Amino acid sequence: MLTLYDFMGSGNGYKVRLTLSHLGLAYKLVERDIMKGETRTPEFLAMNPNGRIPTLQLADGTHLAESNAITWYLAEGTPLAPQSRLARAQTLQWMFFEQYSHEPYIAVARFWRHFFTRLTPQQEMELPGRMEKGYAALGVMEQHLAHHLFFVDERFGLADIALYAYTHCAGEGGFNLDNFPQVNAWLARVAAQPGHVTIEHKD
Amino acid sequence: MLTLYDFMGSGNGYKVRLTLSHLGLAYKLVERDIMKGETRTPEFLAMNPNGRIPTLQLADGTHLAESNAITWYLAEGTPLAPQSRLARAQTLQWMFFEQYSHEPYIAVARFWRHFFTRLTPQQEMELPGRMEKGYAALGVMEQHLAHHLFFVDERFGLADIALYAYTHCAGEGGFNLDNFPQVNAWLARVAAQPGHVTIEHKD
Repeated sequence: MLTLYDFMGSGNGYKVRLTLSHLGLAYKLVERDIMKGETRTPEFLAMNPNGRIPTLQLADGTHLAESNAITWYLAEGTPLAPQSRLARAQTLQWMFFEQYSHEPYIAVARFWRHFFTRLTPQQEMELPGRMEKGYAALGVMEQHLAHHLFFVDERFGLADIALYAYTHCAGEGGFNLDNFPQVNAWLARVAAQPGHVTIEHKD
Repeated sequence: MLTLYDFMGSGNGYKVRLTLSHLGLAYKLVERDIMKGETRTPEFLAMNPNGRIPTLQLADGTHLAESNAITWYLAEGTPLAPQSRLARAQTLQWMFFEQYSHEPYIAVARFWRHFFTRLTPQQEMELPGRMEKGYAALGVMEQHLAHHLFFVDERFGLADIALYAYTHCAGEGGFNLDNFPQVNAWLARVAAQPGHVTIEHKD
């Protein structure tokens, strides 16, 4: 049995939950509240020394960390996985884009604005730059989606799951998606896939 | 023929150059100076809409971006690539760790301190937090390397290349590695691999 250590509000965790749902895999969900430091306990750090959710425990007790590495593991050999060498590289390209050029801006702005009642002075100072870079990431997505139904090979897959997680709730970070019609149409296509679940869904 | 668009000082670019060297692959190097905005020109953005080096052009004209996606593409089917499903996931885990928990702190601190003569007030304010998180990433590496020769499967591979790139020049970002003996021993093991080249090496 797979055990997923997760925090329901996390888009990174949602990538894994969405992948598990699409693949129809049963798992035990163990919630860890990142707001209360529950991923920094000695017990948690023994599973993942980097102290982050999601962390997946395999049936043999092995622990995997990093949302996009976990979904890659789960999807290998399934239709969610890219089918060619080039498609694998393009899928990873979008997954690394997500973690480096998208998540630190869109997810972090959402985290600050959605989970706290007030920003710190440092957050206030950093926010405009984060918003600007978040909009830049949305612009890169909009440009790609003007010519493609999904991110890789015109079929729903891991790159879409990785980018959907924090794009679909970008509004909670103060992002206005009105000027991104291609992104909005793609969000609707992803949400219409059989097996889709929402970020708050629990089995 | 492969064409690599790159900036020699970049650790992200170095990952690709190091992989190409280990694999003995010939390529044409085209330098683009990120300090002069040469990755934000219309010509460059047509290749990579995210405007970053390294960008690899394949023989058929296809462009690949994101250093760790490029090295994954190049290494598939070679001894540098992980051999099992679990090893692939663990390799990706360390590559995503590198891009999310290591590069934004160690590489960015190095970029500010090594390539500019003076920090901006905002950089001065952000630097202590970046240093703290950079040391945390080094701590995670030190802990793992206390029990392992290399990051995955006790053999040199893509995860080592990804993490070597900015760890070996962390000193240029002001990081002191004296308290990380396992990291230092691993750096020496990586540099001793046949096919190793330095960050400034050009074929």
